[in-house]
Amino acid sequence: MADRASRGLSRRSVLTRGAGAVVGGAVIGSGLVGGAVGGAAGYAGRGLLDDDEAVPDWETVADSRVVGAATEPFHGPHQAGITTPPQAHAAFLGFDLAAGATRAEVQGVLRAWSQDAARLTSGRGGLADLEPELARDPARLTVTIGLGPGLFDAVRMPEKRPSWLRQLPAFPQIDQLEDRWSGGDLLLQICADDPLVVSHAARILASGVRGVAEQKWAQRGFRKAVGTDPTGRTQRNLFGQIDGTVNPGPDDVDFDRVLFSDGRSADGQTQRWMRGGSSLVLRRIRMTMDTWEEIDRTSRELSMGRRIESGAPLTGVHEHDPADFEAVDEVGLPVIPPESHMARARQRDRGEAMLRRPYTYDDPPEPGRISNSGLIFTAYQADPVRTYIPVQRRLAEQDALNTWTVPIGSAVFALPPGAPEGGYVGQGLFEG
Amino acid sequence: MADRASRGLSRRSVLTRGAGAVVGGAVIGSGLVGGAVGGAAGYAGRGLLDDDEAVPDWETVADSRVVGAATEPFHGPHQAGITTPPQAHAAFLGFDLAAGATRAEVQGVLRAWSQDAARLTSGRGGLADLEPELARDPARLTVTIGLGPGLFDAVRMPEKRPSWLRQLPAFPQIDQLEDRWSGGDLLLQICADDPLVVSHAARILASGVRGVAEQKWAQRGFRKAVGTDPTGRTQRNLFGQIDGTVNPGPDDVDFDRVLFSDGRSADGQTQRWMRGGSSLVLRRIRMTMDTWEEIDRTSRELSMGRRIESGAPLTGVHEHDPADFEAVDEVGLPVIPPESHMARARQRDRGEAMLRRPYTYDDPPEPGRISNSGLIFTAYQADPVRTYIPVQRRLAEQDALNTWTVPIGSAVFALPPGAPEGGYVGQGLFEG
Ligand code: HEM
Ligand code: HEM
Repeated sequence: MADRASRGLSRRSVLTRGAGAVVGGAVIGSGLVGGAVGGAAGYAGRGLLDDDEAVPDWETVADSRVVGAATEPFHGPHQAGITTPPQAHAAFLGFDLAAGATRAEVQGVLRAWSQDAARLTSGRGGLADLEPELARDPARLTVTIGLGPGLFDAVRMPEKRPSWLRQLPAFPQIDQLEDRWSGGDLLLQICADDPLVVSHAARILASGVRGVAEQKWAQRGFRKAVGTDPTGRTQRNLFGQIDGTVNPGPDDVDFDRVLFSDGRSADGQTQRWMRGGSSLVLRRIRMTMDTWEEIDRTSRELSMGRRIESGAPLTGVHEHDPADFEAVDEVGLPVIPPESHMARARQRDRGEAMLRRPYTYDDPPEPGRISNSGLIFTAYQADPVRTYIPVQRRLAEQDALNTWTVPIGSAVFALPPGAPEGGYVGQGLFEG
Repeated sequence: MADRASRGLSRRSVLTRGAGAVVGGAVIGSGLVGGAVGGAAGYAGRGLLDDDEAVPDWETVADSRVVGAATEPFHGPHQAGITTPPQAHAAFLGFDLAAGATRAEVQGVLRAWSQDAARLTSGRGGLADLEPELARDPARLTVTIGLGPGLFDAVRMPEKRPSWLRQLPAFPQIDQLEDRWSGGDLLLQICADDPLVVSHAARILASGVRGVAEQKWAQRGFRKAVGTDPTGRTQRNLFGQIDGTVNPGPDDVDFDRVLFSDGRSADGQTQRWMRGGSSLVLRRIRMTMDTWEEIDRTSRELSMGRRIESGAPLTGVHEHDPADFEAVDEVGLPVIPPESHMARARQRDRGEAMLRRPYTYDDPPEPGRISNSGLIFTAYQADPVRTYIPVQRRLAEQDALNTWTVPIGSAVFALPPGAPEGGYVGQGLFEG
């Protein structure tokens, strides 16, 4: 410990950029060590260091002293919270529209949320905020607004629903879905590096729309705290796995195309209002620690196709080494088992790319259990029918990891494009 | 924001102490700005800054880059986790002994927990740990072990039970206690600045003792993330109140006497094995945000006797200004209402001193609600019958805050003295 700390310190140098750059978003995240400017750069899923021995380039990392003051812009062509380097804490809130909610009321909800989100993410209290002190240090707060499939009928605009916006098909091989974690006409995704900020923002946003939008579920999750992953590696989940290695990143030529819609669905439908928007597939996946802990390390590594310690593929040494799915061992068996999670999940073509940004949950257990934990699995993509569903179908058919993971919640949302200043998220839906 | 950030940065200077000092415990906490050496120094409840304008002395604050690597020693005269500057995340786990658990088995549990706690708090995996990678960055992990009243009958040593170790009397005016958050023969209090570390340690410690100790409840809470409170002020709870201002601190002459037992109870009983030990009263207190948000700021401030913004008493300007309970306004009414929480809670004599170290909880709400939040209220003291109960009795009788707070869980534990290297917590109970 002392060694690592002192090595880090010896490389330390003062942050030379001004406060503006800091506020722009350069903050330590799990695995994020690149200088981040704006939301898209330096996506945290891409640890820049493959090696335990490497020392991160601290010069590009902002200081914890400004963890609280750092902000992510709310306004922009895309909503924040998608390509934003993952914050340490998140709340996902699902809402159903009250029976008889009108189009104007729904617009009112989206306007109120956008207004309050713009305020909260910049460190001001919400409009009706009685605890503005809790908003003062936004800690990179982002608020991402989603529209569920049911909303379009409720506002009597079924023709505006993107054709891909529907609940996932059932995957009876694996699903044990519970209604209390599933569905929803509206979504708020609230992320920040401080858990109190998340709680406060969730409270302000949810309480402001009662009567029109009723909270159906709330899920809280976390990743490693800011500043606790000094090796610059991707975060780990509660199985101990490095989770988030293979993810599209801002340097990929098709990063934007993977994530953001040009308005057209894979089936040819066009929804102009969704240009620059994205989609979220949210799966709540229980991880059964009890049975996971019954198997040894080798079996764990085979089930994933990667090493626990380094996150490297079984055919490689470093986390980001490309996997060699053709490699065989001395007796001719594939080194990476074809039924491993990685082998099943990997892209068959570029069209299958999605951005994963999962959070760990660890809630009070049911009576008689010692754990109630798993992953709030999130996948963002331009069109989930094109990308997510084929991958999920493969994993449902066969995936060694299924033995220890159980989907208990499922929801799909359209994430409209970002709002310009003075505008609100989803505005385009109601105009023209 | 930018302003504050740049001010902080301009004052920044490199950490001149070696890594050893950092590992010794000097870490940013909510409100902690003093250089902390060992567990007792720089208790975070004592913000050193009264003023919003003041800039903290960053030179004494360790860097976030070592948030993960920082450790708190497990061994010592007192258990860690009591005077330790509060970490950002906590889990409290209550266990009941299985029917028929023997004395030797209970000793086994305490030995196993102590061994694993010593390993985990220093960044090593537990003995049977299959995910040692999750233990690598302990982020100031502390594990505090408590013994509940029922344990002493179970091990057939009723005469060793401190006379103060029993569940609190009922407070029917306020209590709405639920069994699922109350009682317990054993306690694990697990705190760290990283939520993943807390989850992993909780899992390792709880799963290692199944069969002998059955987990009855688990409560997770948080305070502001490390590095998000650059003003150096005491943390806020979800009511927006600065919570933790009046707390004994290591500079108080009787700090140790307030917190640690000399073996004697107020009623004259002596338990030598408890010398250097302490006690924990844990109350799970729901905060009803809905009704709290119905009242205005002035009423809120009157209910507490302090200002929301600064945390100052209504008779003062700065957070740590002493309160003047005699002061009256122009019409002769007391400025600090006698029924305010502060006026009711304040010590009537030094014997009532306790150390509060609360965590906010914010769990998934029940159907139809948007919040399920409150305080995991913890009070540490040498003898709760002497200190806690009189205060709690006063508050149950009258406390303006009771309108918006409801105790839903209650438990009391003896916290044995710390273990020396090679020893285990609670060992003294079984010897001599
Ligand atoms: C609790 C459930 C899950 C766990 C614990 C888990 C864990 C992992 C881990 C450790 C990796 C390897 C490292 C990495 O590239 O991030 C991985 C890769 C991946 N996972 Fe999952 N995963 C889960 C569920 C899912 C689901 C539901 C999907 C999508 C339907 C998915 C899609 C992927 C993809 C696309 C990759 C990258 C594969 C590659 O190209 O190498 N995972 N997952
Ligand atoms: C959800 C429930 C509670 C909330 C929100 C709360 C909040 C507060 C706040 C904001 C203060 C003033 C600032 C400070 O000195 O920390 C305070 C003071 C205090 N509270 Fe509480 N409290 C709660 C429950 C309790 C309970 C159950 C006890 C003990 C039985 C207690 C004992 C005290 C004491 C001793 C003080 C210091 C009073 C003084 O000397 O000025 N509180 N509390």
